[in-house]
Amino acid sequence: MITKNQIKYIQSLHQKKVRQQEGLFLVEGTKNVLELLHSDFSVKVCYATESFCIDNEKLLQKLQISPEIVPADVLERMSTLANNHTALALVQAKENLVLHAQNEWVLLLDNLQDPGNLGTIIRIADWYGIKKIVASAQTVELYNPKVIMASMGSFTRVAVYYCDLSEYTNTIPNKKIYAAALNGASVYEEKFGGEGYLIIGSESHGVNDKLLARVGCSIRIPRRGGAESLNAAVATAVLLDNIFRG
Amino acid sequence: MITKNQIKYIQSLHQKKVRQQEGLFLVEGTKNVLELLHSDFSVKVCYATESFCIDNEKLLQKLQISPEIVPADVLERMSTLANNHTALALVQAKENLVLHAQNEWVLLLDNLQDPGNLGTIIRIADWYGIKKIVASAQTVELYNPKVIMASMGSFTRVAVYYCDLSEYTNTIPNKKIYAAALNGASVYEEKFGGEGYLIIGSESHGVNDKLLARVGCSIRIPRRGGAESLNAAVATAVLLDNIFRG
Repeated sequence: MITKNQIKYIQSLHQKKVRQQEGLFLVEGTKNVLELLHSDFSVKVCYATESFCIDNEKLLQKLQISPEIVPADVLERMSTLANNHTALALVQAKENLVLHAQNEWVLLLDNLQDPGNLGTIIRIADWYGIKKIVASAQTVELYNPKVIMASMGSFTRVAVYYCDLSEYTNTIPNKKIYAAALNGASVYEEKFGGEGYLIIGSESHGVNDKLLARVGCSIRIPRRGGAESLNAAVATAVLLDNIFRG
Repeated sequence: MITKNQIKYIQSLHQKKVRQQEGLFLVEGTKNVLELLHSDFSVKVCYATESFCIDNEKLLQKLQISPEIVPADVLERMSTLANNHTALALVQAKENLVLHAQNEWVLLLDNLQDPGNLGTIIRIADWYGIKKIVASAQTVELYNPKVIMASMGSFTRVAVYYCDLSEYTNTIPNKKIYAAALNGASVYEEKFGGEGYLIIGSESHGVNDKLLARVGCSIRIPRRGGAESLNAAVATAVLLDNIFRG
């Protein structure tokens, strides 16, 4: 049986400070936990309700995983979600390993602040087959529960590396770097090759000037109506769709 | 000076039931309130902090609007937002008027549930110049504060009509109706004209079968990677981009 201290420990991991001290994070909800169990992440403990275990009996057997069973109301107390009555896993964070493009497209994120946006961008990257994201040090933390949630399991297939983006881009030829900018060239006119880097700026300030100076080409999504801008995740999807549609 | 009862009245409009009884809704935050003041919506009262009025002095003079000044902490109590220290307006809801396409594209929303998604879709529609959205009666309420917030002012330029979507589509020739579906034809292969209807389904169930039977063509966004699906708002943007890029 789970103890009060164990519940408290899980709850303490709702905080970034504790996650970073412990090198651990939480994965919550059916979709995310099932994708996690199929991934190469190291799962410390998986807590689940009896009904989750019944619903996924064959899969858990196949993967040789026996979740620690907890009542639904206890799981809810441990979870950051309002209605998590399925599963929650305690998982080891991965090392922050350098990522470079190898004949592929890589996303660069410049100070993205909203966790929902980061999670959604990871899901979009995964949809379009992007496996690597490089984020500025000020970008929202990958292991924020809202990021993991919004990624809908795609955090298991897309690696994120945090670093100083200006230094990082110094090692890349300018012509390979594209940036999303409202005053860039129309993305419909551009010819894209099979590799490159696409920089997405922060929600409020776009891509910073120092980075823009490193960019070979700024691109925009042509606007037909009245909205001033698109949400950062939405813009990422439309740009990637244009890059990959060929 | 604002009274306790006025504050309570504004707070009561955080609830859908009260909004519908009163035929009123709230618009919050700088961007949304400024766009509202430029629109044809009938504003009952505009509450704002002194600093909002100073920052927007010329505009308020030009529009001949004198907000009722409230302290920042009082505005925050009235607002559904955690940190609204700028403005909040009490606005008359519009009548639910029938919308039909007139040589234009119209979005149809089948039971979309998430207010953030609806607001983001309104912003996307506005970006691509779509002026009309028709939503099933079970779709989340347009005047939900989270919808208004996520629309970033675009609710002033895009009209939303709620009705029975099956009945509505009965009056439209099938060949004009497209639906987003994971097993549809590639959107890259399709030729789109200058008018039509695009149906977006609910986050969990997609477009319902009864509606799908009315559709001339189901379309999908080709997937290259591992994610099972895209978020409903993200998919809407990518499909509209393909429709309008010509």
